[in-house]
Amino acid sequence: MIYFDNDYMVGAHPAVMRRLIETNGLHTIGYGRDEFTKAAEKTILSECGIANGAVYFLEGGTQTNAIVIDRLLDHNDGVIASDTAHINVHEAGAIEATGHKIIALPNHKGKLLASDIRKYIRNFYNDDTHRYMVRPAMVYISFPTELGTIYTHDELIGISEVCREAGIPLYIDGARLAYGLAAESGDVSLKDIAGLCDVFYIGGTKCGALFGEAVVTRRPELLPRFDSLIKLHGATLAKGRLLGIQFSQLFTDNLYMSIGQHAVSLALKLKSGFINKGYQLYIDSPTNQQFFILPNDKIEQLKAIASFELWGPKGEEETPVRFVTDWSTTDNDIDLLLSAI
Amino acid sequence: MIYFDNDYMVGAHPAVMRRLIETNGLHTIGYGRDEFTKAAEKTILSECGIANGAVYFLEGGTQTNAIVIDRLLDHNDGVIASDTAHINVHEAGAIEATGHKIIALPNHKGKLLASDIRKYIRNFYNDDTHRYMVRPAMVYISFPTELGTIYTHDELIGISEVCREAGIPLYIDGARLAYGLAAESGDVSLKDIAGLCDVFYIGGTKCGALFGEAVVTRRPELLPRFDSLIKLHGATLAKGRLLGIQFSQLFTDNLYMSIGQHAVSLALKLKSGFINKGYQLYIDSPTNQQFFILPNDKIEQLKAIASFELWGPKGEEETPVRFVTDWSTTDNDIDLLLSAI
Amino acid sequence: MIYFDNDYMVGAHPAVMRRLIETNGLHTIGYGRDEFTKAAEKTILSECGIANGAVYFLEGGTQTNAIVIDRLLDHNDGVIASDTAHINVHEAGAIEATGHKIIALPNHKGKLLASDIRKYIRNFYNDDTHRYMVRPAMVYISFPTELGTIYTHDELIGISEVCREAGIPLYIDGARLAYGLAAESGDVSLKDIAGLCDVFYIGGTKCGALFGEAVVTRRPELLPRFDSLIKLHGATLAKGRLLGIQFSQLFTDNLYMSIGQHAVSLALKLKSGFINKGYQLYIDSPTNQQFFILPNDKIEQLKAIASFELWGPKGEEETPVRFVTDWSTTDNDIDLLLSAI
Amino acid sequence: MIYFDNDYMVGAHPAVMRRLIETNGLHTIGYGRDEFTKAAEKTILSECGIANGAVYFLEGGTQTNAIVIDRLLDHNDGVIASDTAHINVHEAGAIEATGHKIIALPNHKGKLLASDIRKYIRNFYNDDTHRYMVRPAMVYISFPTELGTIYTHDELIGISEVCREAGIPLYIDGARLAYGLAAESGDVSLKDIAGLCDVFYIGGTKCGALFGEAVVTRRPELLPRFDSLIKLHGATLAKGRLLGIQFSQLFTDNLYMSIGQHAVSLALKLKSGFINKGYQLYIDSPTNQQFFILPNDKIEQLKAIASFELWGPKGEEETPVRFVTDWSTTDNDIDLLLSAI
Repeated sequence: MIYFDNDYMVGAHPAVMRRLIETNGLHTIGYGRDEFTKAAEKTILSECGIANGAVYFLEGGTQTNAIVIDRLLDHNDGVIASDTAHINVHEAGAIEATGHKIIALPNHKGKLLASDIRKYIRNFYNDDTHRYMVRPAMVYISFPTELGTIYTHDELIGISEVCREAGIPLYIDGARLAYGLAAESGDVSLKDIAGLCDVFYIGGTKCGALFGEAVVTRRPELLPRFDSLIKLHGATLAKGRLLGIQFSQLFTDNLYMSIGQHAVSLALKLKSGFINKGYQLYIDSPTNQQFFILPNDKIEQLKAIASFELWGPKGEEETPVRFVTDWSTTDNDIDLLLSAI
Repeated sequence: MIYFDNDYMVGAHPAVMRRLIETNGLHTIGYGRDEFTKAAEKTILSECGIANGAVYFLEGGTQTNAIVIDRLLDHNDGVIASDTAHINVHEAGAIEATGHKIIALPNHKGKLLASDIRKYIRNFYNDDTHRYMVRPAMVYISFPTELGTIYTHDELIGISEVCREAGIPLYIDGARLAYGLAAESGDVSLKDIAGLCDVFYIGGTKCGALFGEAVVTRRPELLPRFDSLIKLHGATLAKGRLLGIQFSQLFTDNLYMSIGQHAVSLALKLKSGFINKGYQLYIDSPTNQQFFILPNDKIEQLKAIASFELWGPKGEEETPVRFVTDWSTTDNDIDLLLSAI
Repeated sequence: MIYFDNDYMVGAHPAVMRRLIETNGLHTIGYGRDEFTKAAEKTILSECGIANGAVYFLEGGTQTNAIVIDRLLDHNDGVIASDTAHINVHEAGAIEATGHKIIALPNHKGKLLASDIRKYIRNFYNDDTHRYMVRPAMVYISFPTELGTIYTHDELIGISEVCREAGIPLYIDGARLAYGLAAESGDVSLKDIAGLCDVFYIGGTKCGALFGEAVVTRRPELLPRFDSLIKLHGATLAKGRLLGIQFSQLFTDNLYMSIGQHAVSLALKLKSGFINKGYQLYIDSPTNQQFFILPNDKIEQLKAIASFELWGPKGEEETPVRFVTDWSTTDNDIDLLLSAI
Repeated sequence: MIYFDNDYMVGAHPAVMRRLIETNGLHTIGYGRDEFTKAAEKTILSECGIANGAVYFLEGGTQTNAIVIDRLLDHNDGVIASDTAHINVHEAGAIEATGHKIIALPNHKGKLLASDIRKYIRNFYNDDTHRYMVRPAMVYISFPTELGTIYTHDELIGISEVCREAGIPLYIDGARLAYGLAAESGDVSLKDIAGLCDVFYIGGTKCGALFGEAVVTRRPELLPRFDSLIKLHGATLAKGRLLGIQFSQLFTDNLYMSIGQHAVSLALKLKSGFINKGYQLYIDSPTNQQFFILPNDKIEQLKAIASFELWGPKGEEETPVRFVTDWSTTDNDIDLLLSAI
């Protein structure tokens, strides 16, 4: 069986795992105050081109989104997001559970348009009764999006400008950041991300770690007393160094970028293979998630050798499906799959 | 100046006020345990045709919606509502502040369609990942809607059936219930409302009271320990009898219905007047809110003698406006306005 | 029957009621943006000696406490209060429901000691792990306290200083402020209260209004976007002028102070009467609540002519009881009661 | 340097680590629906003597407490706990952040007394105004307690009975359960714990795992839709099998019990050593945490070779200190330390 269900089916990249083993017997103080964690913070800020910033390590994406958004918003504030945003659909109401509305705007291939955001904010402040409405107080985007698509550099600049005009922070969910940075025809670097948004996170769980996400900000004043808030959300890891160790390794010898490139290049090979065989794209993704529309009988046939997800309810004759690659996917996996279609 | 801004610009209906004066000097125990409140509960249940139910009195609509919805939903549950619903737009995020998502479906002249609700719920349960999504766990509709429109008896039955199929409660926001019951060509009675939904409230604030809303349910087991929850939300009135006294009066000599009929008949006269002069309806409302599209210069001219609200941002040449009637509106007010258009 | 259960058994003071009747038919805009409310704000600030402050009107005490405290605290913050504080005992968990811990310190006749507060805060910051504890971030006191006692001017200065040292706000719950200001041997004026704390509220419900509390602050920057937060808590009154009208009247012709003096002088007469007959005080209160320890058979006997509350569980032979006076209590009521003991 | 600061300074027990390495390259579905996790659940239920129960795996103790308590309590409910309880002191307000009050009763060497709980609950229901107070709706105890002490079997039965009488669940925080089960003169087994409480958790983080806690209940109906609540709290681990794999290993070949016995036997040796040298116990603990009162100069001297925590603020001449052992502590560590005192 070849696995394309998602990018969290396997353990950590071997280099990360090796580092955890090497350090397993060492004694350090808890809660992320150890030297491994400090070193990881330093490395990440340097890679992001941030002179005076802060990094916080957390365990998972939903947790990270909820805590960051809870910190950035005041009472009565909402977060603008695409209607397909992970926070709007697949986080079980975690944002609302912290008391905040998600202001969902229509997605354009998974993305928000700067012009839509600007228009929403203007209309809001033009409304006489807006003090009894939910204030749009931050923007959430994901890079890449839940549909595998990415923002161009210009698009990010556009959204960043809207946020600056409105005086509200831009937050980027980078659960699959490695794959976004390695995207086909992508023109966005880690430093671009770090400079254009106010807070973002570098996804570890889906990009080669056992688990872990690194929240990065060039404006640490936006996250006051964040350690206490993390604890309050039950997200402080006692053996906090586990996160520092993993991220240090991911940012050693360009590993994080390599993992992204590896998975994306295989995903693109897979895309070409399907296109060459005449299959239709469900959406044109330049990253490690690939979406096709397949005849239902073809799906049944492929299920015998590969596991992957249906993307939405089953259609009469054909159904969208998703294939995902990660560090563990091999060239051989792709060949095997393509030979079967 | 003639006032059509809304239906809470003036004090209580004189009969209600008189009753408050008459009882002002009496001593009773607090927190709604007095005899006035018990009598009001009894009368309301009787008018609603409910043998074994419960009534709770609160001070305002946003408060009522937040407390009832907070009680009906479990963690991780959301409430299905129209995208134009008061809870979705004009309550400052009060529902989300209790931790719950509003699942907004497209409105049809302010109303939800039973078929849309059914489809949403089916799709939800067909989704493999639904346990990590927000569960649609109740339905909220308003009667009349925020656009002055009303559901027909058949439409209410349809939505009620969807809810029963799904095993989730139907809640009706009756902030302007008096006007809905008196609607032009309406076929829905108070008993229909009480029987088709699980919980609803009879609006007092906008229908002749100084303030106050009466939550009614024929299924008291849906609101366990509701007194404590009301207190927790800071909504327990020390001199609770003020609510009982007002509602007792509103349901004496058919006053509540009369107030509705009075305001609606004047609103319909106003509608006819505008139509006869060739103005266009923004939406065709059978209740005490009337919406027209007026040329901007006509709006300016009318503002000299009448106050009313623009309904949305000002257009280039014409703009939607709203006129609202209530117990204090007179035949003469309508005549004066119509003579000026 | 003579009523001493509490100070919210009867309607509004006749002067307040008269003003509500006079204004009942006027049309004004809603949500407290009317001229009555603006005038009340202006009068109150002037009476408080505040040049640049803000006043917000709410409906009840629990609601007021919850909203103010929710506004003053950040995530992870707690409020220091006496263990007998209303917020700690009788508000159904309303403060915790907004996510905040009440840090209860031992009461001294219902009061907090400045020295206890200082010690708690020092120990907190001396604790190495304090970032994983609840930060003491404001102080709540009531004036008068739940036991009818009052702080002296010096005591208030002491607590105010501790708060200033720690950089945290002092909030005073003035549910019964009229009676505190009129207390026997009291040396605290309204201007003292307004100047020594950061935010407080002037209780209306228990001091002559139908309902209503006025939140006052000389530091409006502490309550940013407070209107929106009030709406989010469901506490925005549609006919907001009802609060402005009542408070304007309470601060006309010294009415608020007169109500306090009337009730306190009768309460003190009642206290003297009990003392003269040899009864023991449960606590020595200088305000409108009086607490005695009475033999159980005497309690039974008095219950025939007067209603009042047992203060705690019934004892073997004697039980503490409470008698409360308000604007409606008459000299004759006291004489009747005293003649029966 | 020898480390006695706490029991989360080092990675996982080698056997656990080995298992993570062995399974690292396997592909499994996410979110804890894999076979490893199912096997761990089965093993744990069997070890607990539970025929029809449920197990849920989480990442840390504060998170676990917050989610379980949030699930067990209704609106307006509070949790009874010792004033020294971890949830009351060291979880940054995580419980209050879910809206619930901690009803703190005085501790007796870290423990709650059944009689105190019973008395509190009785008084509550005897109070006429209890519906406006926080309802005591569950009991939280830790085993061992935060002071290293343990409940006897009889004491657990006593508390369990109080809970049953009151119809409320008993929840046990087993962050250090391995050490409690291995306690000197302890008479409580894992099956006892599982049978006497309603929900508890088996601590992994402090007992040999990299991280992880296993929530166990013999009454799965108490935790409805718990998966969704875990997700809502951001605590669903994408690579959920990491928890299943670790706990499977901890419950293979009696490893969990062995880790407890190893650490406790060394802790007791350490205790004897200190006692024999004439030092005073701060509290008499039978588990892996040992507390002594040491002269300040002795503390300084020991700090040169060992790290450990002061337990509270530094005294004038002497100060309480804590030494903690775990799977990584060696006989040699103890000898070295004892030779220095």
